[in-house]
Amino acid sequence: MSINTILAPIQNELQMVETRLRESVRLDFAPLTSVFESLIESGGKRVRPALSILATKFHPTDADKMVSLAVATELVHAATLIHDDLIDKSPLRRGSPTINSRWSGTATVLAGDYLLARAADVAANIDNFRVMKIFARTLMAICEGEIRQDFGGAHWPPNRDEYYRHIESKTASLLIACTEGGAILSDGTEAEIAALRAYGYNLGMAFQVVDDILDFTADENKLGKPVGSDLRQGTFTLPVFYFIEQDTRAARITDFLSEDIEQLIHEIRTSPAIDASKAEARRFAQAAQDALKIFPDTLYRRALSELAAYVVERTN
Amino acid sequence: MSINTILAPIQNELQMVETRLRESVRLDFAPLTSVFESLIESGGKRVRPALSILATKFHPTDADKMVSLAVATELVHAATLIHDDLIDKSPLRRGSPTINSRWSGTATVLAGDYLLARAADVAANIDNFRVMKIFARTLMAICEGEIRQDFGGAHWPPNRDEYYRHIESKTASLLIACTEGGAILSDGTEAEIAALRAYGYNLGMAFQVVDDILDFTADENKLGKPVGSDLRQGTFTLPVFYFIEQDTRAARITDFLSEDIEQLIHEIRTSPAIDASKAEARRFAQAAQDALKIFPDTLYRRALSELAAYVVERTN
Repeated sequence: MSINTILAPIQNELQMVETRLRESVRLDFAPLTSVFESLIESGGKRVRPALSILATKFHPTDADKMVSLAVATELVHAATLIHDDLIDKSPLRRGSPTINSRWSGTATVLAGDYLLARAADVAANIDNFRVMKIFARTLMAICEGEIRQDFGGAHWPPNRDEYYRHIESKTASLLIACTEGGAILSDGTEAEIAALRAYGYNLGMAFQVVDDILDFTADENKLGKPVGSDLRQGTFTLPVFYFIEQDTRAARITDFLSEDIEQLIHEIRTSPAIDASKAEARRFAQAAQDALKIFPDTLYRRALSELAAYVVERTN
Repeated sequence: MSINTILAPIQNELQMVETRLRESVRLDFAPLTSVFESLIESGGKRVRPALSILATKFHPTDADKMVSLAVATELVHAATLIHDDLIDKSPLRRGSPTINSRWSGTATVLAGDYLLARAADVAANIDNFRVMKIFARTLMAICEGEIRQDFGGAHWPPNRDEYYRHIESKTASLLIACTEGGAILSDGTEAEIAALRAYGYNLGMAFQVVDDILDFTADENKLGKPVGSDLRQGTFTLPVFYFIEQDTRAARITDFLSEDIEQLIHEIRTSPAIDASKAEARRFAQAAQDALKIFPDTLYRRALSELAAYVVERTN
């Protein structure tokens, strides 16, 4: 099932988000506006706005605040992409030149900061302190996770617990902010808020595990970067941990890494570690779907459930 | 009059701010905590917390929220210092190694982001959306101002209007957030909020003009950097504009800049441009003091007034 089909029930809302997103990055300094616009327009799947909107749909919710929540989550996401690309020195993002490849480091840092500020500004319009605090905490978790990884090189090997902790802060935390924030905004019960929080967490974990699998298995043209990029940069992801645990040659992994990285990547992508990782992603997706059981079987619950399935089965 | 004497009436409140500041940067990842602690402990004058507190003192104000406002302003300030030092590649800040000189660019960007997130988190505790929005807008102004400068090199010469606009976003905007935020938090009247906003603006402008004068006139040991650093980096500040306007040799300023920057700096620091700039700073400080006239003559109004005088007369 395509993402557009899944999100059909909230097409109008997503259209409002697009309009507000564009407005939110329009400022009286044209060069900056044009850079933000191209970042925003290069799109992506708007997973975070979609989650935010769907999570509000179990109770009547103020449309303007719902859109603000969705826009704020996408702005935070865009800001973290800007800083991530700078940190990774990435030349391209979704096929377009990154801000860091066109501008100075200075301007790139500040462009990201500006979007964070804009996200806070939009989030403040929601007039809900619980949501505001979730946003602030999410951003702290994202930064702390990245910094921890930056310093984590000190001990070897990293372990799977740290991997889970890292992808929770890197990816799941913002998806939690979307779904928990939406639930709070719609005045859901505490049980509903907890359920949508659990959904967001598990969806985020599934999403990132699949991203990390695709880094090994996807078509290079679709990826837009060489296969095994994470490992090339020294980052161990779930397939690597399963490979280490399951393959006797893995005792030699440090040799592999320094001597024949191409061979190592080939070994991993053709090993049972990929299926084991995929099974793990499916378990997370299943847990996300299970968390939805307390809600009535509406169009929106079905969309959330289908999103969880989509996240695992996608190929790019 | 020393800054400690001026701020004596709010010593207890500033002590609470110190405690909360330290708590606010304590996280379970020790290396980051220690870097933040040394940044926080290297101190500075706590001008922003002091302004925030004093601005609440014309009406009874919840102490906890007042401290939150003060802490949030100092965290935003600390975050901007981290990103500024990275941008300027500064090795030292108040005599201590900067984060960028000890850590990777990655970690430095993220450390600044983390403090911004923490500031938002603390600000959310104030439970006042008007204050929250002022914070977000302030951060946007700071970023936009810096980016504008980064791009501004394209046209020559810069002009004095742009200089004022730049220092407003760079310095005055956060001071406005302190004083306007404090006034709002204390449930001041709209007239009082406007008065403290005007005070913050004028104090901020005076503060930055004096900073820019000191960059030419201060003792290098006190400055901790070479005299004329701004001009060496191609940044024109108020003394330069007055020099250009008042000195016939200024027509040759582009030659000066490329051929004999030491001589140019010497010419400026011994020219009437310094006194003219100082007079400008005094006009701003006077406007700040005038804005206070609608308040009763309390210890706190006097402290604000003395702060304005101090800002102009300080030598470092």
